[in-house]
Amino acid sequence: MLTATLMTDFGLVDTFIAQMKGVMLSINPQINIVDMTHSIEPFNIRHGAVALGMSYKYFPAGTIHVAVVDPGVGSSRRGIVVDGGKYRFIGPDNGIFSVIFSEIKTTTVYHITEPRCYRNPTGATFHGRDVFAPTAALISLGMRPQEVGPPVSDYNFFDITPPSKTAVSSITGEVLYIDRFGNVITNITAEFITGCGFKLEGRLVSLKENYAQGQQGQLHALINSDGYLELFVKQGTAVPSSLSGIRSGQTLTLELSD
Amino acid sequence: MLTATLMTDFGLVDTFIAQMKGVMLSINPQINIVDMTHSIEPFNIRHGAVALGMSYKYFPAGTIHVAVVDPGVGSSRRGIVVDGGKYRFIGPDNGIFSVIFSEIKTTTVYHITEPRCYRNPTGATFHGRDVFAPTAALISLGMRPQEVGPPVSDYNFFDITPPSKTAVSSITGEVLYIDRFGNVITNITAEFITGCGFKLEGRLVSLKENYAQGQQGQLHALINSDGYLELFVKQGTAVPSSLSGIRSGQTLTLELSD
Amino acid sequence: MLTATLMTDFGLVDTFIAQMKGVMLSINPQINIVDMTHSIEPFNIRHGAVALGMSYKYFPAGTIHVAVVDPGVGSSRRGIVVDGGKYRFIGPDNGIFSVIFSEIKTTTVYHITEPRCYRNPTGATFHGRDVFAPTAALISLGMRPQEVGPPVSDYNFFDITPPSKTAVSSITGEVLYIDRFGNVITNITAEFITGCGFKLEGRLVSLKENYAQGQQGQLHALINSDGYLELFVKQGTAVPSSLSGIRSGQTLTLELSD
Repeated sequence: MLTATLMTDFGLVDTFIAQMKGVMLSINPQINIVDMTHSIEPFNIRHGAVALGMSYKYFPAGTIHVAVVDPGVGSSRRGIVVDGGKYRFIGPDNGIFSVIFSEIKTTTVYHITEPRCYRNPTGATFHGRDVFAPTAALISLGMRPQEVGPPVSDYNFFDITPPSKTAVSSITGEVLYIDRFGNVITNITAEFITGCGFKLEGRLVSLKENYAQGQQGQLHALINSDGYLELFVKQGTAVPSSLSGIRSGQTLTLELSD
Repeated sequence: MLTATLMTDFGLVDTFIAQMKGVMLSINPQINIVDMTHSIEPFNIRHGAVALGMSYKYFPAGTIHVAVVDPGVGSSRRGIVVDGGKYRFIGPDNGIFSVIFSEIKTTTVYHITEPRCYRNPTGATFHGRDVFAPTAALISLGMRPQEVGPPVSDYNFFDITPPSKTAVSSITGEVLYIDRFGNVITNITAEFITGCGFKLEGRLVSLKENYAQGQQGQLHALINSDGYLELFVKQGTAVPSSLSGIRSGQTLTLELSD
Repeated sequence: MLTATLMTDFGLVDTFIAQMKGVMLSINPQINIVDMTHSIEPFNIRHGAVALGMSYKYFPAGTIHVAVVDPGVGSSRRGIVVDGGKYRFIGPDNGIFSVIFSEIKTTTVYHITEPRCYRNPTGATFHGRDVFAPTAALISLGMRPQEVGPPVSDYNFFDITPPSKTAVSSITGEVLYIDRFGNVITNITAEFITGCGFKLEGRLVSLKENYAQGQQGQLHALINSDGYLELFVKQGTAVPSSLSGIRSGQTLTLELSD
């Protein structure tokens, strides 16, 4: 049974996601649809790109990932299929696949123009249901990415700034996202960290191996299960918002203490 | 694989919905259960009726739609199965299927009395799990609607006021619901709108073809992908709550400008 | 098709749950994964234990229940499989299965040590994805519980205080949880209640058979569909927070009025 995932900023109140699933099941009743998340911050393409980059690789080969964070829906922005070999990705050409393009080195991108991929009549405001859902279902039935339309090379993407050593003992990175426990996930990887801690905005932060090692109420850091540096306060208290960099996309500078 | 959808006002915190799914899978392990939404405003039957009317038709023929918004559970209100031909609907007889009755012209309604449709012992407070879930699962296995109990003709429904021209250049309609982006969806359809905009409470509202055409922070309107007039403010700002009609079920009067 | 349920305190914003599902589907593409709930109060093992105890039994025989509420992840606490005969349970050894141990009299508990149950490399912070998900998928494919590791008898659990008659006409019980409608579910069962009501903190509470019998705005009680005494106020108003015991785990004392 082939799996398709859905990631959107639609939330869980309305029936938009159910409508997409209904359209997909009408075309392929055997498709297994999994919700990636529908709580991407509305219109935050960067958040969507990072969330997709964190999660796509845990799915079986052949999985079709649909991602719809789409402030420009109805404008002339294109719908695309990204053929990444092991995985296919479907969504708007607005940068939502930026992390995919940087992680999967050989991709081919196709502009969705094939009439079979469009529900008739196509609504102006809901490409998720009327273009991306049918395209995903058709691909799950065997349509090849090159059948959806012509290849394009001028697709959109943005860079997630890689972390960098800005001085002998100083690292600059960025906040990828903040999770529901208030933990702050950065793009800084283990290789940049030396010693057992660092200073952040004058505050000493010690590096732990896991959450359980932390002291209640203290700011700590660890290398998380994705390999990224994560700031945490033990058990449910969010990382203090008094830190200036605590927004998705913000820059963080760490002073290594040894 | 047959699909059943679940729509409730139970929210996503408790395990009520999982209990319903467990009961259904115990009777038919092959049933494919899709969440329509579980965030209907608690006890708001009108909201449920509109949400179901917006979404049921995107599912494959044969889909069984279960809808539970049920302030009168445990009272003498009946449980019913609505046979709508292409689709079957299961839930309380309290008006939740009002939009279905107005959209599908030939329906037959059955009162659920068949003992096999009731879990034993039946709890007094949870018909979703103890009546509607087993009934849906049995129907997915081939039980015919007329086997659940006697047909009834005095079932409950309410009217969604249709839009009307209240003066030469004035249209009165109603707010169907407000989505998670703060967009206001009305029951006014394209045929009622002439020209490129209208006045609403003295405010000029211009008609756009899609969200992208809007100006940041301005109140606009468009005909949405369901064919309804929708008020929006570009990118994530809700339609101003200073407008007096911004509640589900409220009346809206538009002054057409040409 | 075998069913596995997932219950966590991860919420629905992040992609953690999708990552777990991806891992499970990579091992067994045929597994049917149902969300129990992901809104357990963060780190509240007691809430998780009660929610699991309320819901596991509605699923088909053979269902594998995965429960992850895990403040000690990464510490030395063990991962366990509980073989309960009809159902198997997988999660941390921290008391999350306490209600299961009290309801299912013959269980055998195994410490997960088998290398095949661990993704490689295992992240330090996410056992849900890297240990419990693969273990559940392997068991769904036929691995027997005793193959995951050695049996253990010193597993962790806590008691939910049973209700007791603390005086001739006085019953002491405890709040199990508060549902999304603001209803308060207690551990007091029907056999403890005599007559048609009781006093709670000096307030008269009358016993009803269902929600519909209540008067708008009045505090009432009923025996709910799980057999427990539940406090409710009709239609959407929460039970008054002025009552002192309205937190999960708090003690409640009822004065029986006859």
